Amino acid sequence: MSDTRRASILLSGGLDSATVLAIARADGFECHCLTVDYGQRHRVELEAAAVVAAALGAKTHRVLTLDLRAIGGSALTDEIDVPHGDEPGAGSVPVTYVPARNTVLLALLLGHAEVMGATDLFIGANAVDYSGYPDCRPAFLDAFAELANLATVAGAEHGVRFRVCAPLLELTKAEIIRRGTDLGVDYGLTHSCYDPTPEGLACGDCDSCTLRRRGFVEAGVVDPTRYR
Amino acid sequence: MSDTRRASILLSGGLDSATVLAIARADGFECHCLTVDYGQRHRVELEAAAVVAAALGAKTHRVLTLDLRAIGGSALTDEIDVPHGDEPGAGSVPVTYVPARNTVLLALLLGHAEVMGATDLFIGANAVDYSGYPDCRPAFLDAFAELANLATVAGAEHGVRFRVCAPLLELTKAEIIRRGTDLGVDYGLTHSCYDPTPEGLACGDCDSCTLRRRGFVEAGVVDPTRYR
Repeated sequence: MSDTRRASILLSGGLDSATVLAIARADGFECHCLTVDYGQRHRVELEAAAVVAAALGAKTHRVLTLDLRAIGGSALTDEIDVPHGDEPGAGSVPVTYVPARNTVLLALLLGHAEVMGATDLFIGANAVDYSGYPDCRPAFLDAFAELANLATVAGAEHGVRFRVCAPLLELTKAEIIRRGTDLGVDYGLTHSCYDPTPEGLACGDCDSCTLRRRGFVEAGVVDPTRYR
Repeated sequence: MSDTRRASILLSGGLDSATVLAIARADGFECHCLTVDYGQRHRVELEAAAVVAAALGAKTHRVLTLDLRAIGGSALTDEIDVPHGDEPGAGSVPVTYVPARNTVLLALLLGHAEVMGATDLFIGANAVDYSGYPDCRPAFLDAFAELANLATVAGAEHGVRFRVCAPLLELTKAEIIRRGTDLGVDYGLTHSCYDPTPEGLACGDCDSCTLRRRGFVEAGVVDPTRYR
């Protein structure tokens, strides 16, 4: 084993995970990125992921295809309209909820980490803007790290201790944007919109666009997003 | 909520998971099956899954595609030859190991369960024949159930307690075959071979065929497998 500290990083192509990659790089990790194409509508986000990985110095970047539409349950993967503006969602949990999403994504990231020899799993989970998602809470992330130690040859037989790193967990969107800007992230390369135009322009008023726009305003940073 | 007890069952089309489905049915569950096509070579097994689900009275059966080849690491998904007969494997862990496989499969099954309203996750994990896989051990399965309670809206907000049921965990292959035969499983519908012919005939001497053949002999049950 070399002294290189390797991180497996879940990279969506959005604002949050680009910031996570920049943080992991700044922390000295050799960064191996995994993008999961889970049948979401916004394919422009997948293209953004490759650009972001290269721009922020990732060592490797792999794209894994998972067609979650077979189990449905979300506006992001089903043929249900994404809510805009003030339209009501589905109660306390947003309609954009994907069943067991972070469990699935972290499981895939764990497999990726095992192959890459990484011990630190980085995910852009956030407990401020996404408080309705149970799988964005610290107790869940800690439980996943414990599971990872039991699940793998590295953990169960070689004494490796996996860590789930969620450096954005307690940050507001504005704080995330300030942190990434300090680290040189070009947010013009990232994509957040749930409902982009065919040309990849952001709609400007889905939940994700609304959070993102407000974040740039509150951060006092010029918003480089191309809106329709 | 009705009084119907619903189970989400991981169904591969192999001998073990067919037995699991029969056990869940006998236990009184309404059975919802999920087959994960994770890029394995033996596609005949996926076709067997649909036949088995129908034959054993599953209420629903869905197939979800996950291309694990992007993270490689296994002879089942990479272009590495499957070992036959006495050829050496890769040490204590078989070369057919898929990184974080049961973590990934249980995560997908959890998403499926959440959509289906199921609370019991059935998996054909076995600690006798697959002792080299850390994710076939009771401690891992128990940890996953705990994770599921934290990961989901049902568990975290509605007080649902998920269970991971691995009814084959302590059984030998012969005991599994005897149990399934008692429950009316037609093992001629199932497929286990890692390296079948293009026509779907079993090779007869990969690790999986070897275990299966020996199981029928030891169980004193006629082996209905079609070998090449």
